[in-house]
Amino acid sequence: MTATIDLNSDLGEGYGAWKMGDDAAMLEIVSSANVACGFHAGDPLTIRATVDQAAARGVAVGAHVSYPDRVGFGRRPMDVTSAELTADVIYQIGALQGIAKAAGTRVTYVKPHGALYNTIANDARQADAVIAAIREIDPSLVLMGLAGTPVLTRAREAGLRVVAEAFGDRAYTPDGQLVSRREKGAVLHDPELVAARMVRLAREGVLEAIDGSTLTLQADSICVHGDSDGAIAMARRIREELVTAGVLIAPFAGVA
Amino acid sequence: MTATIDLNSDLGEGYGAWKMGDDAAMLEIVSSANVACGFHAGDPLTIRATVDQAAARGVAVGAHVSYPDRVGFGRRPMDVTSAELTADVIYQIGALQGIAKAAGTRVTYVKPHGALYNTIANDARQADAVIAAIREIDPSLVLMGLAGTPVLTRAREAGLRVVAEAFGDRAYTPDGQLVSRREKGAVLHDPELVAARMVRLAREGVLEAIDGSTLTLQADSICVHGDSDGAIAMARRIREELVTAGVLIAPFAGVA
Amino acid sequence: MTATIDLNSDLGEGYGAWKMGDDAAMLEIVSSANVACGFHAGDPLTIRATVDQAAARGVAVGAHVSYPDRVGFGRRPMDVTSAELTADVIYQIGALQGIAKAAGTRVTYVKPHGALYNTIANDARQADAVIAAIREIDPSLVLMGLAGTPVLTRAREAGLRVVAEAFGDRAYTPDGQLVSRREKGAVLHDPELVAARMVRLAREGVLEAIDGSTLTLQADSICVHGDSDGAIAMARRIREELVTAGVLIAPFAGVA
Amino acid sequence: MTATIDLNSDLGEGYGAWKMGDDAAMLEIVSSANVACGFHAGDPLTIRATVDQAAARGVAVGAHVSYPDRVGFGRRPMDVTSAELTADVIYQIGALQGIAKAAGTRVTYVKPHGALYNTIANDARQADAVIAAIREIDPSLVLMGLAGTPVLTRAREAGLRVVAEAFGDRAYTPDGQLVSRREKGAVLHDPELVAARMVRLAREGVLEAIDGSTLTLQADSICVHGDSDGAIAMARRIREELVTAGVLIAPFAGVA
Repeated sequence: MTATIDLNSDLGEGYGAWKMGDDAAMLEIVSSANVACGFHAGDPLTIRATVDQAAARGVAVGAHVSYPDRVGFGRRPMDVTSAELTADVIYQIGALQGIAKAAGTRVTYVKPHGALYNTIANDARQADAVIAAIREIDPSLVLMGLAGTPVLTRAREAGLRVVAEAFGDRAYTPDGQLVSRREKGAVLHDPELVAARMVRLAREGVLEAIDGSTLTLQADSICVHGDSDGAIAMARRIREELVTAGVLIAPFAGVA
Repeated sequence: MTATIDLNSDLGEGYGAWKMGDDAAMLEIVSSANVACGFHAGDPLTIRATVDQAAARGVAVGAHVSYPDRVGFGRRPMDVTSAELTADVIYQIGALQGIAKAAGTRVTYVKPHGALYNTIANDARQADAVIAAIREIDPSLVLMGLAGTPVLTRAREAGLRVVAEAFGDRAYTPDGQLVSRREKGAVLHDPELVAARMVRLAREGVLEAIDGSTLTLQADSICVHGDSDGAIAMARRIREELVTAGVLIAPFAGVA
Repeated sequence: MTATIDLNSDLGEGYGAWKMGDDAAMLEIVSSANVACGFHAGDPLTIRATVDQAAARGVAVGAHVSYPDRVGFGRRPMDVTSAELTADVIYQIGALQGIAKAAGTRVTYVKPHGALYNTIANDARQADAVIAAIREIDPSLVLMGLAGTPVLTRAREAGLRVVAEAFGDRAYTPDGQLVSRREKGAVLHDPELVAARMVRLAREGVLEAIDGSTLTLQADSICVHGDSDGAIAMARRIREELVTAGVLIAPFAGVA
Repeated sequence: MTATIDLNSDLGEGYGAWKMGDDAAMLEIVSSANVACGFHAGDPLTIRATVDQAAARGVAVGAHVSYPDRVGFGRRPMDVTSAELTADVIYQIGALQGIAKAAGTRVTYVKPHGALYNTIANDARQADAVIAAIREIDPSLVLMGLAGTPVLTRAREAGLRVVAEAFGDRAYTPDGQLVSRREKGAVLHDPELVAARMVRLAREGVLEAIDGSTLTLQADSICVHGDSDGAIAMARRIREELVTAGVLIAPFAGVA
């Protein structure tokens, strides 16, 4: 039996004259593109260019929905009401669906961005508002969340299909949590080490935790970054090692 | 044979804490709601409330797309590129489609707003960019434009269904153009007069021009305003007189 | 000796085509105008109209600075960094100073708005960021804050002049805190009662707390609202009763 | 007698997480920094970092004011009213003045950006609105405009001090106009050639026009770009050749 895993990355994060990352390079590496929807990044023309390229390469398109905070890049926690959050998420998914339709593809999943991603991992109220949004606009959309966090269980119980993701460049605690960025050793920088860890995760479902113990982690997708040359090189290395190890890289959610 | 006409109005034009117009009152009058999509007005929560109410009352929902100019309320001409405009229009239609889907209805038409409406009436390049957007996201969407303007012909030739609208409170030149607002007598204020004119337009397809001559005007929809108590009263009067005259008021484009 | 008090209200809170409140009416009532600076409300043209009117009436102008959250009207807590907050506050004060200069007046105080107002009342880190902003752009600006909260002490210790404000339409706990809006009786609706309370506060420095006990409250300014006809009527009643009781109504911080 | 000239460049054009250009590199080259004010680029924190660096290096700070069009980077003509434009320009200048004050420097000039720059060069109504803004907030501010265009005359007649700028990398017609970018040869790419031209301009006040004729051009400042490595290298080359030729590089308007 062949191991299969998805590689995802944040794309379409330019805004007007401002560029961010190298979408073309990353679209040769990943199988799923988390595309900005305009609230933290991504004007319509930028979004469209990214979705057009994703469609041309058979990369799955996900809605990378955010709090409405462009100047803060969606990274600042905001205490929004549930009704606001549900409407904001529906609006963003719809906008991306429109652009995907025009590009001959479709949105297959939703990955909250930045502060919203972190908040809903554990905040039940905001998690429920996002879950409600997906159920109302299209319950066949998959919700991507952090492996091991309560939001995935809540979403599954609400009838959604969910996908758990792991971070290639992050260390984990023995109980499957991300080591906080404030701790030493939280971020991994060695592409060979990271690639080897991800091959083991994809094939055996285990990772070595920061204390050396072995951790079982169920993850269907690996998040890779494209925000620097070093990040792209690491993402490429992960892909190469997975392929060499016979792991199939494919979108979890299908493409249009 | 029964005469039929559509009544449309601009709705969902609040933004966050700011209100504009009385959507609830207007939804009892019109058969089609031009709903703001966020670029000149309308945050997701406001849009959603309007679309929910329209759905509940069987009022058709149209995408009131605009230039990206919230502080100018979309009323200021902008020299955007065709690619920008097409992407902006797709984004806005998609966002409204998403909210309509969540509300159990659908978007059936597109009416450009403000400066964009006026510009594309005669500017072929920008008109083509809007037409392209509609064709790419959903060619079954109807384009609403000003009766007698070239954009309607261009859209029809491009394969779109179009709807021509007339303005109840505006005077017309003998050749079917709106009298410029800078001219005396351009705006009509007497609800009885306006209502009588609209009944004649709906039943006979004619209007009296500003010089007293009789003008043939093909219009499937009448635009009414809700931005003041006086405007709402005039809109209500138009509806009542049409009903009294046996004219059927119905959306031209169907409802979900 | 004559008792003196300031009356302040939030003004300039329209945005482009959207109106909010009746600035002209309120400028006949208050002695200090908290003018929106563009981050929660107030486009430059709206701000300018308000400042022009304030200048013409001898009303003091304060910078009503906010988190950058127009769609949320600055009412949603945001976890901004100190550096962001300091820069945001300097930018807003500077912008308003520019408009005040053009109008022949000047900004004399700073009143944080909405969620920022509530947050800094007790959050030392964000309070310090606001205090730093004022010290860096103009240490002669007065900081207005909620009577009895730590931010006033911090600001005073940092060398700023501060002004404590009370809310006419709010009930107080025996220890001088506002009764939470979630509690019964938190908001007072009777203009006569409110006006009588404010006269007593201005003359004797005491208020009756929600449990009937007498509370000593040091307040130099009373916040009144103008967001509804009822609110304006209450504000006018407060002013009239203060004048009748011989209390002098005057800006605490002087006018240009 | 020593020839003196100013070198200016657009700086502070990042926005939140998005970067643009290399401000640190350019601040070693130029004597005047046109700093974005938030309407086309520049959030408060980015603006502040740029102004802090400019102050530290003794570089003059100018307000690079724009139409309110962040997604279009201020490059799209907008048909704004005079009152809107005047208020928008005052607001932006004031905001930058506030940040300059906090940084221990001051704003000494105003350079309109992008589409606004091009529009006011010849559009008297919008030019007058910008001129009015400067006169109202601070008539000692210098207006920088394109050498040879009517806006400079209008501003001078209105009592403002003006500075004419030339573009190092652009070809000129025999009558002193910029060759349109749509024409062949409009943009110059050879750093040596450009540097030699600018030395001649600074020393003799003449330039070779595109037809080989000699053109007299009064210019007090040279605009250089920093939007690519090549552009920075060219700017550095211009500076070096000017220094080698004994031309003094200094801000036309003084520093704080």
